[in-house]
Amino acid sequence: MDLEARLEDASTSHSAHPQELRLWLRMLTCTQLIEKFVRTQLRKEFGTTLPRFDLMSQLERSPVGLKMNELSRRMMVTSGNITGIADQLTAEGLVERVPLADDRRAFLIRLTKAGRAQFALMAKAHEQWIVDALAGLSESQSKQLHTLMGHIKQQFKQAQAA
Amino acid sequence: MDLEARLEDASTSHSAHPQELRLWLRMLTCTQLIEKFVRTQLRKEFGTTLPRFDLMSQLERSPVGLKMNELSRRMMVTSGNITGIADQLTAEGLVERVPLADDRRAFLIRLTKAGRAQFALMAKAHEQWIVDALAGLSESQSKQLHTLMGHIKQQFKQAQAA
Repeated sequence: MDLEARLEDASTSHSAHPQELRLWLRMLTCTQLIEKFVRTQLRKEFGTTLPRFDLMSQLERSPVGLKMNELSRRMMVTSGNITGIADQLTAEGLVERVPLADDRRAFLIRLTKAGRAQFALMAKAHEQWIVDALAGLSESQSKQLHTLMGHIKQQFKQAQAA
Repeated sequence: MDLEARLEDASTSHSAHPQELRLWLRMLTCTQLIEKFVRTQLRKEFGTTLPRFDLMSQLERSPVGLKMNELSRRMMVTSGNITGIADQLTAEGLVERVPLADDRRAFLIRLTKAGRAQFALMAKAHEQWIVDALAGLSESQSKQLHTLMGHIKQQFKQAQAA
């Protein structure tokens, strides 16, 4: 019995809403399987981590650079120590600080040319890992899954707006 | 434009497989929305955290108790410092250490009676939060989503076994 099945068994046996708990456990399991796979591949193929990849990915989307607080807000993976990761990438020459003219204490951080080149390689590999991870779905199943999760997202937004 | 839409725009514009990246971003977004909601509710209603809830939840499924390494392995949420959380819960009387007769250095940890009572309250509330979080889906959509994510999981298992 795998982890999800064991948890499901225990969580839903006294539950009034077993289907919802089952679905949530499966969502969590699937997301974690893929995330773990991505972490493993990043380490094996590039000797890097998901928070580092995530940070570079956010910078790649903002060529002008980002302030640290904006960068923190945009990270998809909670990483604990974003300043530490940014410092590390700066020391490796992949990221640089850009002083802001109007505030001597403030700065933007952005990818260097070397950082952009390295990220491009990682992004290409990452795309293929995701394609592999989702290979169990046909194109129409993939679209269906996207739509169904859109309903969850939509309902969340409505609940937040209410 | 929300975070997912913005990332999607940037990630898929030069992509050979935009649909797969889009789906992965949505899976990540939905899981994180629900997880964040659960974290907020745990804090507001019970003054506790997801790693604490997760740890108690694993213990509730093993009434005899678990060794620390087994407990770590079973946690659904990576928490960094499981020993610290276990010590904290022990100090609060929700968890206790049980010495093992055959190894003086080893012990099991398990819920106390107070811990079981508190966890029962939290588990009931948690179930309702998940029902609320998934309210955007009809019963048949919920089953469909469960089945589709089962295909992803199945394909992962086959890839690992190969």
